Amino acid sequence: MKKIAVILSGCGVFDGAEIYESVLTLLQLAERGVDYQCMAPNIDQMHVINHLTGEVAENESRNVLVEAARLARGEIIDLATANAEDYDALIIPGGFGAAKNLSDFAVKGPECQVNADVLSFTQAMHKAGKAVGLICIAPAMTPLIFGEGATCTIGNDADTAAAIEAMGGNHESCGVSEIVIDQERKIVTTPAYMLAGSITEAASGIRKLVDQVIELA
Amino acid sequence: MKKIAVILSGCGVFDGAEIYESVLTLLQLAERGVDYQCMAPNIDQMHVINHLTGEVAENESRNVLVEAARLARGEIIDLATANAEDYDALIIPGGFGAAKNLSDFAVKGPECQVNADVLSFTQAMHKAGKAVGLICIAPAMTPLIFGEGATCTIGNDADTAAAIEAMGGNHESCGVSEIVIDQERKIVTTPAYMLAGSITEAASGIRKLVDQVIELA
Repeated sequence: MKKIAVILSGCGVFDGAEIYESVLTLLQLAERGVDYQCMAPNIDQMHVINHLTGEVAENESRNVLVEAARLARGEIIDLATANAEDYDALIIPGGFGAAKNLSDFAVKGPECQVNADVLSFTQAMHKAGKAVGLICIAPAMTPLIFGEGATCTIGNDADTAAAIEAMGGNHESCGVSEIVIDQERKIVTTPAYMLAGSITEAASGIRKLVDQVIELA
Repeated sequence: MKKIAVILSGCGVFDGAEIYESVLTLLQLAERGVDYQCMAPNIDQMHVINHLTGEVAENESRNVLVEAARLARGEIIDLATANAEDYDALIIPGGFGAAKNLSDFAVKGPECQVNADVLSFTQAMHKAGKAVGLICIAPAMTPLIFGEGATCTIGNDADTAAAIEAMGGNHESCGVSEIVIDQERKIVTTPAYMLAGSITEAASGIRKLVDQVIELA
């Protein structure tokens, strides 16, 4: 049985992993008979957003691994302890956590950096020739992880696409129910909630992404 | 288009709404072309559980409505402001939040009480002849909401079933991929993570429950 790593960035669209994208990813993996292991970096979130008001919750701090454990029903490991050789492929769901915790793209745009544990694990997977799927805003990390010329999509947001190009990436526009594949590098991306107006729209692209990652794994 | 209310009890299996059950419910509603509105009581959680360690996070408090907003991408209303006449049916996903926040069943067993806003809205729906679906441990509230003789399932846990019977309910054993229907009272229940060993098992029963609630709506 194939085993696929899933990196979560917290729990909640505005400061962590997008919950629907994460659950849809795990559901599709399970429905395809593929085993998975959730993992997250053991770091503080950039901040905590009150998801009712949209405002920053001052004086509150939460840990990415601890909050991501909610999404994984406690079945999660510290990303720093994960070994790339144990997995056949990797998927990183979106949500602002990908741009606030896994990287600082939300703050620094094309000047951003990727968290050291995320970079180390993802590059180890890539160097071993394994497929990596990135969803929603997570593909903004593509040029920094896979190097110049790597192709990805975040949908059609002009500013984000320009930032990806400025980092040396190759951005392709893509509809919400479609995926973009960099065949040479085995990178699969889909816009999901960068474009989705409903959970079914998000599901349509994510199912294709998961199926393609499994096929490449 | 039918519109179905979904009561969430936080965000995370050990102190709030079970995330997979909640997302699977919304996904199935959306895939059936049914509109939905998430709502939650505006109260403090019983406590906060660190989902990585399973321990109570001392000196931390979170609000049920604010945390449930994570599960709803911010698209949620205070249960106290919801009008039963605006909805065709109601579904309450499980997770310990149903037994810690929507009621105190987790602490008091058959001596438990149901939160006033939950009781008021759910009974208003029931009195209007509308269907109510309850998932996982949420059916433990069945006798207190719908009165003596109401039939439900929480799977096959003997102690929980006995507590339901002690409150005047009628418990039926049920497999994870099945549902129990109280036709007279329009109550639909399924065990989900009371029994599920995987997200696909939870999905099998929840899809049936959602389809049945829509049919009764």
